[in-house]
Amino acid sequence: MQNSPSPEELHAFDREHFLHPWHDMNAWRGYDNMLVEAAQGIYLYDETGRKFIDGPGGMWCVQIGYGQAEMAEAIAAQVLKMPYASPFTNVTQPGAILAKKLADFAPGDLNNVFFTTGGSTAVDTALRAMQFMNNSLGRPEKKMILAREKGYHGSTYLAASVSGKERDVTKFDMESRLVHFLPNVNPYLRPDEMSVAQWCDAKVQDLEEAIAQLGAENIGAFIAEPILSSGGVIVPPEGYHKRTFDICRAHDILYISDEVVTGFGRLGHWFSSQAVFDIEPDIITCAKGLTSGYLPLGACIISDRMMERMTHRGEVLFSNGYTYSGHPVSCAAALKNIEILERDNVLAHVRDIAPYFQERLARLTRYPIIGDARGAGLIGCIEARLSKDGSRLEDERKIGAMIDQACHDRGLIVRPLINMCVFSPPLVISRTQVNDLFDILGQAIETVCEKFDLTP
Amino acid sequence: MQNSPSPEELHAFDREHFLHPWHDMNAWRGYDNMLVEAAQGIYLYDETGRKFIDGPGGMWCVQIGYGQAEMAEAIAAQVLKMPYASPFTNVTQPGAILAKKLADFAPGDLNNVFFTTGGSTAVDTALRAMQFMNNSLGRPEKKMILAREKGYHGSTYLAASVSGKERDVTKFDMESRLVHFLPNVNPYLRPDEMSVAQWCDAKVQDLEEAIAQLGAENIGAFIAEPILSSGGVIVPPEGYHKRTFDICRAHDILYISDEVVTGFGRLGHWFSSQAVFDIEPDIITCAKGLTSGYLPLGACIISDRMMERMTHRGEVLFSNGYTYSGHPVSCAAALKNIEILERDNVLAHVRDIAPYFQERLARLTRYPIIGDARGAGLIGCIEARLSKDGSRLEDERKIGAMIDQACHDRGLIVRPLINMCVFSPPLVISRTQVNDLFDILGQAIETVCEKFDLTP
Repeated sequence: MQNSPSPEELHAFDREHFLHPWHDMNAWRGYDNMLVEAAQGIYLYDETGRKFIDGPGGMWCVQIGYGQAEMAEAIAAQVLKMPYASPFTNVTQPGAILAKKLADFAPGDLNNVFFTTGGSTAVDTALRAMQFMNNSLGRPEKKMILAREKGYHGSTYLAASVSGKERDVTKFDMESRLVHFLPNVNPYLRPDEMSVAQWCDAKVQDLEEAIAQLGAENIGAFIAEPILSSGGVIVPPEGYHKRTFDICRAHDILYISDEVVTGFGRLGHWFSSQAVFDIEPDIITCAKGLTSGYLPLGACIISDRMMERMTHRGEVLFSNGYTYSGHPVSCAAALKNIEILERDNVLAHVRDIAPYFQERLARLTRYPIIGDARGAGLIGCIEARLSKDGSRLEDERKIGAMIDQACHDRGLIVRPLINMCVFSPPLVISRTQVNDLFDILGQAIETVCEKFDLTP
Repeated sequence: MQNSPSPEELHAFDREHFLHPWHDMNAWRGYDNMLVEAAQGIYLYDETGRKFIDGPGGMWCVQIGYGQAEMAEAIAAQVLKMPYASPFTNVTQPGAILAKKLADFAPGDLNNVFFTTGGSTAVDTALRAMQFMNNSLGRPEKKMILAREKGYHGSTYLAASVSGKERDVTKFDMESRLVHFLPNVNPYLRPDEMSVAQWCDAKVQDLEEAIAQLGAENIGAFIAEPILSSGGVIVPPEGYHKRTFDICRAHDILYISDEVVTGFGRLGHWFSSQAVFDIEPDIITCAKGLTSGYLPLGACIISDRMMERMTHRGEVLFSNGYTYSGHPVSCAAALKNIEILERDNVLAHVRDIAPYFQERLARLTRYPIIGDARGAGLIGCIEARLSKDGSRLEDERKIGAMIDQACHDRGLIVRPLINMCVFSPPLVISRTQVNDLFDILGQAIETVCEKFDLTP
């Protein structure tokens, strides 16, 4: 094996052979991605040794930051002792302890952990469990899934089918027969004369109307991210979560809270469903921060109440699961990650620093190209706007990439999403580093303003 | 965190909180699985230190055996240097090198590697890629998937839907509208008067008839394991692969070869499609042996020919992929695994020892309860039969578990599948260890024979 190819060779291998997620099919084999060579703390380093603040925290996941030696030790120890045992028939120490731990973290009676390999498979499992339950209860027609525009839940066929984001620009099929989408809940979109409270009423009414139209007897689940993250960090209006949850419960519609992004401290709590939004879902899905992205792992956590409706009803297998469900090494990584988050009081740190992070974020609306700056916890998003009437949409759509480039030039990675940039840095970010991040971002935005002949 | 719970506590945590794949829903919280505490070479150890030969090799995956210190070192080194970088926008050294390596191993022009988190997501991606391609080509009706009874391809909603195994005993939904199943290809099922060559003709005809019935213009892909593994180690008759492949190619039906089990040396080659069965599929899916199960990883390898039909056709994204696609630590584990397989000539060892393994396997038909003993490479299956007319089906269905128990008592793990037991030990198994495995298996079968008052 070629052990040390040059950066040029690595780029060539990548271009020729590595198909990236969300690959631009028009640029196949004709692009250059950034080579990430090393990482430490909140920083990434490219092959020249250039240092970048990792704004997206990997992909909303590297909570404890990079270079944690204890993680390497815990992972290596598990590899050496017992790297694998089939989860179909065996108990392992890391798997059993982690399942207990997640049941303790999860609210209410969410005591049953089905491990997966990431967020997509956790969502896939959650939705299949709903189908399983309703078939078990003899109501096979109660299967429609309510989801939301701009929601993102993953990219298995089923998880993609309930994602409202980017449905229009793909050549992939979606299973539209299984899902009904509720309109965008982003308060930023409300008419000028409408209050946020009125917007909330309208969004709750969207759900009620969908139930009235489809019939509760045909609806199996409502799936919702507490904050619609990849769709543009959309924070639903206050009160929305509890009111929609209560409506679902009243109609025996399962509430699936997709906490893949919001779990494990991103909003300052292990899970946000109850701690932040006062709901006790039937299922919580999680991944990402569970291992801080150090190894692949996801989980679908199911309530006792739901389990009781699936079990002891005759000889039937829960015929779902993966070779790598509850992988012992991934579980050992998750346990060490949780230990670090607990010991270093990282969740308290997030609750402590998030108000300052959000304050610096909010200040970015002082730039004339920034229409909205929104977020929660350690998640932020800026949305460009050049005109209120939509007449400059074409230019607006370029701004995400322009700000991204200007940030890159100054040593900050953000994630551009059309006319937006989003970021969710490692939770261990210090106040000084928050300042660095927003200082660079401000300078980058200023540069882009100048390109449009606008000054703050 | 509770660092060292007792075995009793671990069992309790597991029972209360860990939902296992293929969980028996009638036994929820009322069962005891085996606790695997440690592993070394081809052996697993329980909490009392009892040693077992790992017949299933984890789950058809632990090719290099357990306790490989180099794996722990390579994994820890990557964790420390750079545990994660988003595959959406970055190149990493392990990802780029591994993609190149897999392209080199794969036959023909299969040069494009889409990494996933395991076999299910590799299959999900392969099938979605077929849909993407045919939408791109303006033939959205060419989407039906041909699959086979007893085939197993994973458990996302889509992967489960093309799996023919156990469809009848689940409460999960399947997307039957997308798939058409071909009848069982197991030569063991052929009538007494039929030769294997005639059986092959009949099975090829099944495919031709399905195409005639559905119309080639409506069929997007044929998905097939070279050996139907979880479905009971079904080895299609000689010539079947090539003939079905040629038919698919003639009708522009993509051939997806699911090598999750047969890849990485299980049949003595990196991939078996071309080396063993003389076909060059459009897509190969793999997982398991890719990392020897040490960390989660899968891949969907796509031909240039297929890529050319998906790219440079306007602005469109391949909007599929996972946070953990091409995870750098998993890729580093795969590279070290491949290095070990190459350096220690493990594939040559498999080609060398497999004939003896298969010879010892075949001899098991001397026991009156064993109707068939079949396999290939280092895969084996025994199938119980008490009567030819099916009159003792009830008893036969107990025999898998009975043999499993008798093996367990003697220090061997096998995988019971109703009236069968399957095994696929680590590829590094020695001749002496092959003897141990079959000696124990023979004794176990003898014990079960005695319970039915039968003697060899």
